[in-house]
Amino acid sequence: MTTIQETTRDEVLAAAARGREAAVVLATTSRATKDAALNAMADALMVHEAAILAANARDVDQSVASGTAAGIVDRLTLNHDRLQDIADALRDVADLPDPVGEVIRGYTLANGLEIRQVRVPFGVVGIVYEARPNVTVDAAGLCLKSGNVALLRGSGSAYNTNKALIDVLGDALETSGLPRDCVVMVPGTSHDSVQYLLTARGLVDVIIPRGGAGLINTVVENSTVPVIETGVGNVHVYLDESAPLQRSIDIIVNSKTQRTSVCNAAETLLVNSASAERLLPGVLAALKDKGVTIHGDDRIRAYCDAAGINFAPATDVDWAAEYYSLDLAAGIVDGLDDALAHIRRWSTGHTEAIVTDSQEAARRFVAGVDSAAVMVNASTRFTDGGEFGFGAEIGISTQKLHARGPMGLPELTSTKYVVVGEGHVRA
Amino acid sequence: MTTIQETTRDEVLAAAARGREAAVVLATTSRATKDAALNAMADALMVHEAAILAANARDVDQSVASGTAAGIVDRLTLNHDRLQDIADALRDVADLPDPVGEVIRGYTLANGLEIRQVRVPFGVVGIVYEARPNVTVDAAGLCLKSGNVALLRGSGSAYNTNKALIDVLGDALETSGLPRDCVVMVPGTSHDSVQYLLTARGLVDVIIPRGGAGLINTVVENSTVPVIETGVGNVHVYLDESAPLQRSIDIIVNSKTQRTSVCNAAETLLVNSASAERLLPGVLAALKDKGVTIHGDDRIRAYCDAAGINFAPATDVDWAAEYYSLDLAAGIVDGLDDALAHIRRWSTGHTEAIVTDSQEAARRFVAGVDSAAVMVNASTRFTDGGEFGFGAEIGISTQKLHARGPMGLPELTSTKYVVVGEGHVRA
Repeated sequence: MTTIQETTRDEVLAAAARGREAAVVLATTSRATKDAALNAMADALMVHEAAILAANARDVDQSVASGTAAGIVDRLTLNHDRLQDIADALRDVADLPDPVGEVIRGYTLANGLEIRQVRVPFGVVGIVYEARPNVTVDAAGLCLKSGNVALLRGSGSAYNTNKALIDVLGDALETSGLPRDCVVMVPGTSHDSVQYLLTARGLVDVIIPRGGAGLINTVVENSTVPVIETGVGNVHVYLDESAPLQRSIDIIVNSKTQRTSVCNAAETLLVNSASAERLLPGVLAALKDKGVTIHGDDRIRAYCDAAGINFAPATDVDWAAEYYSLDLAAGIVDGLDDALAHIRRWSTGHTEAIVTDSQEAARRFVAGVDSAAVMVNASTRFTDGGEFGFGAEIGISTQKLHARGPMGLPELTSTKYVVVGEGHVRA
Repeated sequence: MTTIQETTRDEVLAAAARGREAAVVLATTSRATKDAALNAMADALMVHEAAILAANARDVDQSVASGTAAGIVDRLTLNHDRLQDIADALRDVADLPDPVGEVIRGYTLANGLEIRQVRVPFGVVGIVYEARPNVTVDAAGLCLKSGNVALLRGSGSAYNTNKALIDVLGDALETSGLPRDCVVMVPGTSHDSVQYLLTARGLVDVIIPRGGAGLINTVVENSTVPVIETGVGNVHVYLDESAPLQRSIDIIVNSKTQRTSVCNAAETLLVNSASAERLLPGVLAALKDKGVTIHGDDRIRAYCDAAGINFAPATDVDWAAEYYSLDLAAGIVDGLDDALAHIRRWSTGHTEAIVTDSQEAARRFVAGVDSAAVMVNASTRFTDGGEFGFGAEIGISTQKLHARGPMGLPELTSTKYVVVGEGHVRA
C-alpha cells in the first residue's frame, strides 16, 4: 500500500509562494534562456536515468503489491525508451515559438494613445493529474516555455518518480540560471493537499486538471482558483441521409477503433433513418471486423442481428458513456434535428462529426452543435493539438471560458494592455 | 424593509433551463433579427416608462424607509432622462458589429483538412449585480447582441424595477420573433437564490459578478460555474526619476480626481526618491487644490506639511484601500524596483501607470507590472471599454483567464473549431 504523505495548508501555500517568487523572474526571461533550460532539462533526465528508473521501480512495486490494475501500472512505468521520448518532447517544446510578447492587437486612438494587447504568462499554473510520470515533465516544459511556473500535484502512487523527476529538473533549471522553483512539487499526497492547492487564490492563477471525469469534477467543485477543464469526451458521429457509404465506414471505423483509450474516440453512432437501410449493413460489417460491440436502440437491433455483430440494448448509461473500449452506443434518428437534440442532451462538448454530401446539412450541423470541435467528413480523432499543427498540447479544453479545444502554448498565456501616451488625460 | 423573496433550487434551475432552451435558438439567430430586437427593446422601455418608473418608485420608497445611504438610493433611482439613456445604450449596441461567426483563425493542413476557429456565444451568462437598474438592461443588451441568454440576478432592493424592466424586454423580444427567455430573471432575492445560480453547472456557462469586492468574493468562493471577475481596482501611479513635472501633475490629478467613484481611479501615488524634491511641491499643491487628503508614509510627510495638504499616516489598510474618494495613499520609493515590489504586494491587477521620460524605465515598468493595463505617460482613467474603442463594456476583468481588462462584445463569446474534410481519417 502506498503511504499517504500528510501535509499542512501552510506547507502547500509556502510551496505556491516559492513558485510565485520564481514566476516574477520567469515572466521576463528571454526565449533563449528558456530554450536552453528546456534542453538542459532533457539532458539531465538522461544523465540521471538510473536514479529516475530506480525511483519509478519503487512506485511500480508498491502499485503492483497493492493490486493496482495492469493498465494503470503500465501508465506509471518508465523505461529507457519512455524516458527518452519524454526528454525528446522537451526538446520539441524548445523548438516551438515563444508565445510571450506576441502582440495580438494594436492600434492608435484618435487622441494619439497607442494601445497594444500583448501575451503574458499566467504566472503560476497548478496541474492536478494522475499516475502518469510523462505529464510531470510535459507540463513542466510547456509551462516553462510559456513563462509559467508549474505547480505539480501528481498521484501519490507516482510520488517517488515525480520527486526524482522534479529534483533533476530543478537542478537543470539552476544550472541554466533560472530559479529551481520554476517547477514546484506540491507537498503531500493526501486529499487535503489538493484542497489547499485549489483554494490558494492569489498565489495560483489557474488550475488545469488532467485525468478522468472524477478528477475533473473534484477540481471544478472545490476550486476557488479559475479552472480550465480538459478532456472528457462523449463523442458522436452522425451519418446523414446523403452520407456516402465508404466515407461513412472509413470515418466511424477510424473514429471508434483507431485508438480507443483517448478522449477524441467516438462513443456514439447516430444514423439517419432515411439512410439506415443503405448504410448500416456495410458500416456494421466493418465495425464487426474490428471487434466492436454495439449498445443499440430498438430500431438498430435488427440491423445488428442481420450483421451478426455483438449487441446489447442501450440504456441511458450507454448514451452517457465514455467507454474507452471497443464498445459503441448506436441509434437511429429521424433526421438532423433529432440527431442534434440527442447530441445536445448527451454530449460532453468535446467533438462531434457529420458524414454527409449535403452542403445544407453540413451547415446546419456545424451551427447546431455546441462543442469544442465539429468535424465535417473527417474522423473525430483529428481533435488534437499535434494534428491541428500546434506542436504540443497541454490538454483539450471542453469548457467555453478562455480556451476551447486543443490547447497549445498560446492558450497557456493571458494578455495585458500596454497603453502609451505623452501625458494624455481624460476630459 | 425590503421583503426577501424565498425560492427553491428547483425554481432557479427551471429558470436557467428556460434560458438554455432559448440559447439554442439565439445561437443561430441572425444579426438583423438581434438588432431589430434591441431597437424594439429600446422602444418598449420608453412606451412603458410610466409602469417602470412606478415600479422603481416602490423600490426607492422601500430603500429610503429602510434607511439606505443616499448614494445607493441615487444609483437605484430611475427618471425619464436616465431611462432614455438606458434605451439609447441599447440602440448603440445594435449598431456594433456582431462578434458571432467571426473567424479568428483559419488554415489548411498538409493533408487538406480545413480548420477554422469561429466565435460562438457562451450560451447562458449569469450576471450577479447590485441595485443598479441600468445594469439589468445593459447586460441584457450586450448578452443578446453576442448571442447569449442573460440570466439576471439583481439586488432585492431593485426587485420591482428589475421585474418591470425584464417584463417589458421579454414582450419586446417576443414581438421581434425571439423567445422571451433570452432575458431571464432569476427567481428569489434570498442568498440561497444566488447560491443555486452559482452551482447550476451544465445550465449556466459563465457567471459575471458586477459590483464591489464583497460581492465578487462571494461569487468566486461559491461558484462551480466558471467566473469572470470584474472591476476591483487598487490603482497605482508611479512618478519616475525622469518624470516631467507638468506631466506628473496632469496625470496624477486626472487619475485621482477626474472621477473618484470608479475602478480605474488612482488610489496610490509612488514617487521616486530621486525626484521627490523636484516633483512633490508642485504635485501636492495641485492635489491640494482638488481637495485631496494624503495617507502617506514617513518620508512624504514633510513634503505634505510644507504643501499644507491634509495628511494622515498610512497603514497597511491604506496601501490596500480602494477609497473611491478624494483620499490618496502616497509614499516615496527608492527607485523603480521598489515601486514594482510595492505594486506586486498591493495591486489588485487592474491598472498601473508610470510617468517617465526614460525609455528604459518605461520598458522595465511595462515588463514588471502584472496588471490588466499598464499606462505609460497616460491617465489610469483610460482603462475603459469606451475609451479603448470597444463601443460597449460588460465590465473590466481583473483575472487572467479568458479576458483581461475592458471586456467588449468579443469577450462575451467562446470559439469552436470547424474542421472540414472529404473523408479524412487518421493514419
